[in-house]
Amino acid sequence: MISLFAGIDLGGTTIGGVLADAAGRIVEQETIATESHTGPAAVIERIALLVERMTSRARVRASSRLDAVGIGCPGLVDVARGVTKFFPNLPTQWRDVPLAAILAKRLDCPVSILNDVRTATLGELVFGHGRELGKMPLTLAFFSIGTGIGGGLVIDGKLRLGPLGAAGELGHQTVLLDGPLCGCGNRGCLEAVASAPAITAEAVRLMLGGQAPTLFTLVEGRAALITPQKIAEAALAGDSGAQEAIDRAVTFLGIGIANVVTCLHPQLIVLGGGVAEMGDLLLAPLRRSLRERVGMFPSDDVRIERSQLGPNAGPLGAVALALRGTANL
Amino acid sequence: MISLFAGIDLGGTTIGGVLADAAGRIVEQETIATESHTGPAAVIERIALLVERMTSRARVRASSRLDAVGIGCPGLVDVARGVTKFFPNLPTQWRDVPLAAILAKRLDCPVSILNDVRTATLGELVFGHGRELGKMPLTLAFFSIGTGIGGGLVIDGKLRLGPLGAAGELGHQTVLLDGPLCGCGNRGCLEAVASAPAITAEAVRLMLGGQAPTLFTLVEGRAALITPQKIAEAALAGDSGAQEAIDRAVTFLGIGIANVVTCLHPQLIVLGGGVAEMGDLLLAPLRRSLRERVGMFPSDDVRIERSQLGPNAGPLGAVALALRGTANL
Repeated sequence: MISLFAGIDLGGTTIGGVLADAAGRIVEQETIATESHTGPAAVIERIALLVERMTSRARVRASSRLDAVGIGCPGLVDVARGVTKFFPNLPTQWRDVPLAAILAKRLDCPVSILNDVRTATLGELVFGHGRELGKMPLTLAFFSIGTGIGGGLVIDGKLRLGPLGAAGELGHQTVLLDGPLCGCGNRGCLEAVASAPAITAEAVRLMLGGQAPTLFTLVEGRAALITPQKIAEAALAGDSGAQEAIDRAVTFLGIGIANVVTCLHPQLIVLGGGVAEMGDLLLAPLRRSLRERVGMFPSDDVRIERSQLGPNAGPLGAVALALRGTANL
Repeated sequence: MISLFAGIDLGGTTIGGVLADAAGRIVEQETIATESHTGPAAVIERIALLVERMTSRARVRASSRLDAVGIGCPGLVDVARGVTKFFPNLPTQWRDVPLAAILAKRLDCPVSILNDVRTATLGELVFGHGRELGKMPLTLAFFSIGTGIGGGLVIDGKLRLGPLGAAGELGHQTVLLDGPLCGCGNRGCLEAVASAPAITAEAVRLMLGGQAPTLFTLVEGRAALITPQKIAEAALAGDSGAQEAIDRAVTFLGIGIANVVTCLHPQLIVLGGGVAEMGDLLLAPLRRSLRERVGMFPSDDVRIERSQLGPNAGPLGAVALALRGTANL
C-alpha cells in the first residue's frame, strides 16, 4: 500500500493538482478551471472531486492510499487554523473560509493550507534545489515573477512565516521612491516595476513610441499580443527597446535580490514564475548586478538559479506541505 | 565569588568597556581612546589593561572572577575563528588579526568577537527590549544610525550571522535608485542617505541656501557646528529646513524598515546610535510610514522603539557575547 499526497495550487483562473509519493514522484496530474464566480463552496467541492479523480486513477495502477492534502492559496491564510484571510484575486466571499476543515471532513484526511508562493518555496526546499544542497541548514529566497511578484524565505532550513503567515512578501519591498502605484496600496514595490505586466507595459510604451521595431514585427504591431516571451524573443534578436524593458526590470529585481542578500546572506536565490522562463536573459545580468551592489560584503557564494521544479513548484510544494503538515514547516 | 564578564566596544576613536554580572548589571565602566595609529598589537594590549583595571577595581569591593570577554568589532570578523576580517575605519593592519586568541592568552579566559552592531543587537535581545518580550521566540531588527548605519537581525531568538557573519547589514539596502555613492561602493544605500553625515550634509545645504534660519542662528552660521542634535533642536523650534533634512532621512529609513518588515515580519524594530536620540522626531513619522507602506499586509503588531540600552547596547551586547560564546548565538 503506497502512501500518496495530493498537492493543490489554487489560482485565480486555474487549479493545478498533483498526486505524488513521499519522495515527490508525481503519479497523477490534472489542471482544471477555478471558475471562481461559482463561490467558495463550489470551488472547494471541485477541488475535492479533482483529488478523488486523481486518487481513483492511481488506484487502478497500484494499491495506494491518500494520506494528506496540501493547498497553496493565492493570498494570506491563517496557517495554524487553516482559514483563508485575504485572496486579492478571488471574490471577497473567500475571506475567513475554514478551507482546511471543510476539505478534511469531505476527504477524510488531514488538509494543510499556506500562501501559494511560500508553498512553492517549500517545494523548492524539499524537492528542488534544496534536495541537493540539503547537507547544511539551507537559507534561500524565492521570487515568483508573474502577474504579481510573490516571495518566500527559508531561513536555516525553516520556512519563515512570521506570526501571521505574511513574512516573505519579497515582491512588496519598495525599490523605487515615489514609484508607480502597486496593487497593495504602496508605491514603487518591486511588483509594480518588475512583474510581467510591468515589463509588458514598458515594452508596449517603447513599441508604440517606435523604439522596438523587431517586437513590432513579431506581434504585427498589436500591443495586446505582447508577452514577456515575445519581449525576450525580440531582445534576443537584437531589439534594443525590448532589451530596455528587460533591463529596467532587471535593475529593480537586482535591487530586490541584493537587499535580501544584504539582510540574510542566503546560499541561494531561486527565480520562478513565467518571467523566470526568460532564463539567461534575466539570470546573467542579475548575477552581475548582485556582485556590483553588495561588492564589499561577501556574496560570491550566493547563487541565483531558476526554479528546478518550474511550473510544478506550486503543486509539489503543496505535496511537501501535505507531508510535513503546518506544524513542521 | 561572583562571576564577571567584560564587554568591549572597539571603535575607530574610542574603546568602551564594561564589567557586568551574568544578569547584565554593570559593576565597572571605563572608556579610553583607541589611538588606532599605534597598530593592532598596542591597541589589543590597551584593551587587556582596560579589562585588568576594571577587574581589579571590582575585586576591591567584592570577591569576583573574570569569566569571559566579548568584543564588538567595527567591521567584519570570522566569528568561528575569532579573527578580524575587514574594519573600514581602522588601519589595514587589522586584517586577519587573531584578536580572540591573542586576548584569550593574555587574559587567560575565553574571548569571543563579533561585528559591533550585531553585538549591540544581541545586547538588546538579552538585556534590553528582548528581556521583557522574551516569552516567545523574538524576531527583531536593529538599526544603529550614526556615522554609518549598521544593522543586526534576531530571527526566532537567534542572531542571524549568515555563513560569514555578514548578514544583517540593514544599512546597505539600496533605497534610492542611482543615489549617492556609499562607502561600500554601491549607490543609494540607506547609509548613504540617512546616516548622521547624510542628514547633516542636507541640513548644511539647506542652511547655506537660506532655507534653515533657526539652525543658522543656533550654529551662528557655522556649517562645521551642525550636528543631528542641533538639527533636531532647530526642527523642534519650527525650522522648516531642519525639518526637511530630518523628513528626507525618515523617508528612506521608512523604506528600509518597511522592507525588513515585509520580508521578515519581526515583532520589533529597534533604533540605536546617535541619530536615534532624536526620539519622537524620528519614531512618530517612522511608525506612520510603516503603516502606509505595508498597509495591506498585517503589521499593526510591529513596534518601532528606541534602544532600551542606549549607548550601553554595544558594551552590554559584548557582555552577552561573553556569556553565550559564539557557538550559542
